[in-house]
Amino acid sequence: MLDLPENVTIKEVGPRDGLQNEPVEVPTEDKIAWIDRLSEAGYSYIEFSSFVHPKWIPQLKDAREVAASIKRKPSTTYAALVPNMKGLEGALDTGVDEVSVFMSASDTHNRKNINKSIEETYPVLGEVVSEAKKAGKTVRGYVSTVFGCPYEGDIPVHQVVDVSQRLLDLGIDELSLGDTIGVADPKQVDTVLTELKQQLSFNDLAMHFHNTRGMALANVLVSLQHGITTFDSSLGGLGGCPYAKGASGNLATDDLVHMLHQMGVQTGLDLEKLEEAALFIQSKLNKTLPSHQMQVLNKERV
Amino acid sequence: MLDLPENVTIKEVGPRDGLQNEPVEVPTEDKIAWIDRLSEAGYSYIEFSSFVHPKWIPQLKDAREVAASIKRKPSTTYAALVPNMKGLEGALDTGVDEVSVFMSASDTHNRKNINKSIEETYPVLGEVVSEAKKAGKTVRGYVSTVFGCPYEGDIPVHQVVDVSQRLLDLGIDELSLGDTIGVADPKQVDTVLTELKQQLSFNDLAMHFHNTRGMALANVLVSLQHGITTFDSSLGGLGGCPYAKGASGNLATDDLVHMLHQMGVQTGLDLEKLEEAALFIQSKLNKTLPSHQMQVLNKERV
Repeated sequence: MLDLPENVTIKEVGPRDGLQNEPVEVPTEDKIAWIDRLSEAGYSYIEFSSFVHPKWIPQLKDAREVAASIKRKPSTTYAALVPNMKGLEGALDTGVDEVSVFMSASDTHNRKNINKSIEETYPVLGEVVSEAKKAGKTVRGYVSTVFGCPYEGDIPVHQVVDVSQRLLDLGIDELSLGDTIGVADPKQVDTVLTELKQQLSFNDLAMHFHNTRGMALANVLVSLQHGITTFDSSLGGLGGCPYAKGASGNLATDDLVHMLHQMGVQTGLDLEKLEEAALFIQSKLNKTLPSHQMQVLNKERV
Repeated sequence: MLDLPENVTIKEVGPRDGLQNEPVEVPTEDKIAWIDRLSEAGYSYIEFSSFVHPKWIPQLKDAREVAASIKRKPSTTYAALVPNMKGLEGALDTGVDEVSVFMSASDTHNRKNINKSIEETYPVLGEVVSEAKKAGKTVRGYVSTVFGCPYEGDIPVHQVVDVSQRLLDLGIDELSLGDTIGVADPKQVDTVLTELKQQLSFNDLAMHFHNTRGMALANVLVSLQHGITTFDSSLGGLGGCPYAKGASGNLATDDLVHMLHQMGVQTGLDLEKLEEAALFIQSKLNKTLPSHQMQVLNKERV
């Protein structure tokens, strides 16, 4: 009855989406050591930092240093988030493999996040995408608040379709649809994916779930049934969105990998090495990581 | 794509399966007040306690007093777990509506749990079922370790089929299949349900998931797609199985209800009243309940 793909690609966003929402600033050398451990665990894709103004996200002010010192594996794509041309320049200077741009399907969330309307955002991202392409880089486009906005509530599917289409028109290579505040339910994922597949033509679509209300793995399951084979996640469940009350918890890579491997779906990742890497960053953050795998592991270590 | 039922029945096991695994003994009057709050939230079924020897489960030694003092709604079935004839007599004395018997699909787990082999268990349960029926009661049969055993590991599906068939032959009215240690993944649920539906003939089948590894709601989703419309859960995620390392966390009623209501599936439950009831028992246990809904709620209350 369950029709599952043989392989899934997991894009690790912990060093960016995870760390940017942690109150503790992890020392640069620890970030580098952590990312090197992630590379060793077998990822084909790591979003290692964000080239944004340190006033916005002080936790990631060392993107340049991190980029310069991580050991890059040829089989891994090292990507960074960039909000604008200045960010892109920083990222290109360090020789990233791919850049990510981002915007919201909700105008209010977009304004709160980057101080621009959705319409005002396109030309900014258009220039970034165009310049990144000229530099020979691939570009990923994040759409946030796809399944709900902390300010506007429900987001009509046509808004998601519109924003996605405009990003594709700008030339992005992959869309990543974000459930920024962790409100998506499986039925909604089913509806949105059905609609998107009917209305858009895309090569690569990734889903970016948060586990705020415990539904992330159920949402992954529906996405798999829709043929989606790329998922963003954050090791140990690090991070979340700071702009919404009660909105924490990226889908944990370790929980995702555990479920996929149990079901016979391959990821290329070594779960044991992932757990070691999670224990490493947990020790640097001085907190217990929220993933289920880490909770089981922490109990077993007592 | 997602074919969901219109209605689902949720059987609340928190006062039994939840409290029996909490180190704190909740005072009888608080249990009664809690169960009355549960009744007010709209449950059609509450497993309110267990008539087992207090040496085994001291947390539930007041089953008789609880039964005598809860306000029973005519629309709610009040059930109790009974391991043997002595337990059944206690339960019948207090006028329960239904009794539950239990055994394991794993011989080792069954022995550790009730000190009998699977074969030795049938005649004991047979007498209980027969006497309960004579007293005009319905009987529920729990099968535990359906998806894995802490001692034996994987459990072959034919063992689950065998134990289920024997319980049905004894005359039980409903089977409840338990993922005692929270290891089931959606593919496995799919496989087991496909096999069971082919090999057994039953009227009522309930699934009893634990969220130890975060997959409970994904497992519910697959079960719904198989036409299952009865689920056991524990408010706030109280409890779990004490016999296995790292095995905690019944599926939380509030997380389950939230997901179902979001998807348009009716449960007859009032989520707001459930949350109030969860806050009530949380205050008595002096701990933070692990459900996602409670985590969101606790954050919002800070």
